Amino acid sequence: MDDRIRAHAETLVDWSARVDPGDDVVVRVAEGAHDLAVAVAAALGDRGANLLATYGSDEVTRAYLRAHDGDFAPPDAERALYDRADVFLSLRGGRNTAATADVPGDVRGAHARAREGVREARMATDWVSTVHPTRSLAQAAGMSYEAYRDFVYDAVLRDWESLAAEMARLTDLLDAGSEVRIVADGTDVTLPIAGRTAVNSAASVAYDSHNLPSGEVFTAPAGADGEVTFDVPITVRGTDLRDARLVFEDGEVVDFSAAVGEAALADVLDTDDGARRLGELGVGMNRGITRPTDNVLFDEKMAGTVHLALGRAYDACLPAGEAGNSSAVHVDLITRMDEGSKLLVDGEVIQRDGHFRWEAGFEG
Amino acid sequence: MDDRIRAHAETLVDWSARVDPGDDVVVRVAEGAHDLAVAVAAALGDRGANLLATYGSDEVTRAYLRAHDGDFAPPDAERALYDRADVFLSLRGGRNTAATADVPGDVRGAHARAREGVREARMATDWVSTVHPTRSLAQAAGMSYEAYRDFVYDAVLRDWESLAAEMARLTDLLDAGSEVRIVADGTDVTLPIAGRTAVNSAASVAYDSHNLPSGEVFTAPAGADGEVTFDVPITVRGTDLRDARLVFEDGEVVDFSAAVGEAALADVLDTDDGARRLGELGVGMNRGITRPTDNVLFDEKMAGTVHLALGRAYDACLPAGEAGNSSAVHVDLITRMDEGSKLLVDGEVIQRDGHFRWEAGFEG
Repeated sequence: MDDRIRAHAETLVDWSARVDPGDDVVVRVAEGAHDLAVAVAAALGDRGANLLATYGSDEVTRAYLRAHDGDFAPPDAERALYDRADVFLSLRGGRNTAATADVPGDVRGAHARAREGVREARMATDWVSTVHPTRSLAQAAGMSYEAYRDFVYDAVLRDWESLAAEMARLTDLLDAGSEVRIVADGTDVTLPIAGRTAVNSAASVAYDSHNLPSGEVFTAPAGADGEVTFDVPITVRGTDLRDARLVFEDGEVVDFSAAVGEAALADVLDTDDGARRLGELGVGMNRGITRPTDNVLFDEKMAGTVHLALGRAYDACLPAGEAGNSSAVHVDLITRMDEGSKLLVDGEVIQRDGHFRWEAGFEG
Repeated sequence: MDDRIRAHAETLVDWSARVDPGDDVVVRVAEGAHDLAVAVAAALGDRGANLLATYGSDEVTRAYLRAHDGDFAPPDAERALYDRADVFLSLRGGRNTAATADVPGDVRGAHARAREGVREARMATDWVSTVHPTRSLAQAAGMSYEAYRDFVYDAVLRDWESLAAEMARLTDLLDAGSEVRIVADGTDVTLPIAGRTAVNSAASVAYDSHNLPSGEVFTAPAGADGEVTFDVPITVRGTDLRDARLVFEDGEVVDFSAAVGEAALADVLDTDDGARRLGELGVGMNRGITRPTDNVLFDEKMAGTVHLALGRAYDACLPAGEAGNSSAVHVDLITRMDEGSKLLVDGEVIQRDGHFRWEAGFEG
């Protein structure tokens, strides 16, 4: 076994999920994630946790959903499992990213609604979602299998403790600030953040961060004014979206365009009122991620990028009792902070040309 | 997909497990049983049942157990799952029958003890265990993959309703009888069965029969006198056993020999007092099984054979409140009812040369 698989499993179990002896751990194993499951099992055995592995097969799900009439009974037994479980680890990494492409949307929706209680119980555990590199995901990223594996492990096997400390410098700045301004090629936007809380997403339940890899700081802006051009290509609702440009006035999108995929962008914006407002401002800080792979889990964490999400805001960023932007969607769009870019908090430059002010390359 | 996989899934869900709409069904998928899992998922979706697939991977289990110190906590979450589940389907069919060969026996035993509650809750559901033909199982049977698949589907895809009706003829004879006598080459043994109940093992929970394939009638003899030669080769405790011969007096083995594996047979007999007595007399009636494959699940069901098990008796065969033979072991040994053989109940020949008296080949 590749030593990196073992290191991935140990990072997941110890740093991310903080598994304790005697914990009841449910591990969902995607079709292609067998090798990671074996390594995770060894780590859980060593820590004295209990293990129940579930089979997260897209092909099994597809067959089940296509045969079902859509009138789903509540899954009480599965709910009982997650009500008692301490930790849920999802090992993603299928064999075909389009495996469920021919499941009717209404059945998929009805199934998700019937499983809302299961989802909630699962989210109440110390849950972490991660990705095992498979040939299918390499293909989706346009990369060879070998190169993709290097890419994933560079992203996952970080010195998380030291990255968390670095990210804390940014959360401190954001928590103390009232306004963020982003300046880059095709971008000059101002985002009020007074009273909002920045999350240090350090790939650990101890940081309320549930993805491995992570490596971003995010908050929920209260508005937006200006324009942004998103130059990192991304697939939105199955459609390639390139150089999307949004113009904001008083927090709302008042104009938009895209070099490719403009109709899909229009669809997103038309979802509901909240879809025309921002739910998230995120700053990618994972230096192991050096290129986009059309997978938002990785792309939005890429060091030297910022992302804005249209739609729903996360409660963790909001003052207690305050509702943030609400929407059925949360669509992340990403822009590079290359040569000539600036990130400012209350008028003070905290990142220039992609270098934070605590980094060597930064000149004040 | 091979149509036989679909037929296997439908037989499992409808005939064997009698799945109802809304049932919570847990399906354990062995490493090599993916294709059957897809077909079972489609059948469960069609019947409107809920599905939770678990990953029954020997390699995951091995890694977990080898890393564990053996001090297992009770798996409460998994127990809660099975306490609420209606049906449990085990789809066996791994990729290496020796996958867990290097797990220490004491850890394996401690794990099984900690999971006793889970096992009991699972056995309280409408559970069925079946086998998906894999290359690993074909190899264990000494057969090509193609031939092994034919073999498995011939055994599984029976007209179960009609076989159940035929087997009922034999259970009626046994329930009314007081004594069975088996005569074959190297065999002449008499087994008292008065007051014992014969089970019609028709591969369905409706018959209290939990294996697919099945196709045997079995009861618990109260004693044994005479000798038996078991001419179907079988692996016992990892050792090839051939032409085992047992001599019984007053229900107990008083002499034994074997052409191959005599020491392993001696080990079995030395386990405890009950290991020298019989717990089961079974009559194989599945005509789809035409050759032994060194897998007792199939071999003991082979039409034209009878089997006797040293050790533990099944409660279903005993009068209420009566304890049958008790032992830590239950080792099935099989003999062919070829040309020259006879099966008698109370002196009346009910099978001759392998043909029952209701069959065309039988001459009374």
